[in-house]
Amino acid sequence: WRIGEGWDVHALVPGRRLVLGGVEIPFDRGLLGHSDADALLHAITDALLGAAGLGDIGTWFPDTDERWRGADSAWLLAEASAAVRERGWQPVNVDATVIAQAPRLGPYRAAMQAQIAACLDLPPQAVNVKAKTAERLGPAGQGLCIEARAVVLLRRAPCA
Amino acid sequence: WRIGEGWDVHALVPGRRLVLGGVEIPFDRGLLGHSDADALLHAITDALLGAAGLGDIGTWFPDTDERWRGADSAWLLAEASAAVRERGWQPVNVDATVIAQAPRLGPYRAAMQAQIAACLDLPPQAVNVKAKTAERLGPAGQGLCIEARAVVLLRRAPCA
Amino acid sequence: WRIGEGWDVHALVPGRRLVLGGVEIPFDRGLLGHSDADALLHAITDALLGAAGLGDIGTWFPDTDERWRGADSAWLLAEASAAVRERGWQPVNVDATVIAQAPRLGPYRAAMQAQIAACLDLPPQAVNVKAKTAERLGPAGQGLCIEARAVVLLRRAPCA
Ligand SMILES: [Mg+2]
Ligand SMILES: [Mg+2]
Ligand SMILES: [Mg+2]
Repeated sequence: WRIGEGWDVHALVPGRRLVLGGVEIPFDRGLLGHSDADALLHAITDALLGAAGLGDIGTWFPDTDERWRGADSAWLLAEASAAVRERGWQPVNVDATVIAQAPRLGPYRAAMQAQIAACLDLPPQAVNVKAKTAERLGPAGQGLCIEARAVVLLRRAPCA
Repeated sequence: WRIGEGWDVHALVPGRRLVLGGVEIPFDRGLLGHSDADALLHAITDALLGAAGLGDIGTWFPDTDERWRGADSAWLLAEASAAVRERGWQPVNVDATVIAQAPRLGPYRAAMQAQIAACLDLPPQAVNVKAKTAERLGPAGQGLCIEARAVVLLRRAPCA
Repeated sequence: WRIGEGWDVHALVPGRRLVLGGVEIPFDRGLLGHSDADALLHAITDALLGAAGLGDIGTWFPDTDERWRGADSAWLLAEASAAVRERGWQPVNVDATVIAQAPRLGPYRAAMQAQIAACLDLPPQAVNVKAKTAERLGPAGQGLCIEARAVVLLRRAPCA
């Protein structure tokens, strides 16, 4: 068994799509970044790589690399998942929190969970996404950014 | 085995009681919220629900629901614990951190651990509460709020 | 099995060495604190103590105690590790994130992992350090501080 944790933040700015957990969410602003800036998938990718001792998302997918410009973070997560499985680990469960003052994310939780589970080749009930506001405190609370946190549990895959 | 994580923040304001980990702490301000605003119990409740794949505290106990106005968060945590156990999981251990510039929480750590253990039907040594300041940085460091973080480990309950 | 989590922050100020994960990093500022202010080792120490139900770093090594002035945090982590092992637990893996707007930490990740593994008497591949910026948001993003987060997994040591 192994555990990993991840954290990410991206600025909320006009003129960008808001993509969280692989799901596009209608909102007047979106997350700024080199890829699609999906903070939730990035936190989960980091937790997954971290649990398997495989470094971090910045090393695997540098934001200075033109290959990842505008990248679909679901693809990055699936790549990380494949690397983890190749080394003999399998994800057991993922739990994560998105911290956003707005928009309300409750209606999108189930869709995010399904997307993440698909990337990880897990049943949807092994993925849990929670949503919080920051009670108007700090940059997330002022609506300047969205943060995400995640933990992942891995186990040794049974031999094939 | 399953793992979960939780995070919460509440603003510190005059004219409210300060309740953390189910323990009332003498202080000139308290946490603002719909319930008793016990950020530590809320983070643990989210970690517990998250580990079991049961969503989040906001879905279970919406802060728009009059039933939870001024609610004792120890009751919310015990409800979440019952739901988790009904689905065949049992908590193994809880570890959490409270981030508060003031007051000093060290003297209350043992009482908080006992309260949390009672809510979860765990021995006190399976619950650990840590306290930190934010080194005067950010809203928590300026004394505007208190944050809490938690992780929970679950295992399958042995068959009855 | 037990899990623990830790978090720490220290202010970045001129005239101090920057030590993270037990590795001195060339930079024009360093972390402010009573000890060497190694936020990464402090977060891991807290996660380790927390998983074993042994309280927190502030209780073990109070920053009001002259013994720990300028202390090497690698020594504090090794002490915590010894205490955890004495109680019959052994660390399985550690995953952590350092949040720093600058300097770039990628080049030091392997050295940090080796140092942390040595403190914990673990193989280096059981320790993973990730690095993130805070996207210029909040005190870490403004370069006023460095934050660290960690999780630790413990298992019962086999009988001697
Ligand atoms: Mg990112
Ligand atoms: Mg709350
Ligand atoms: Mg510290």
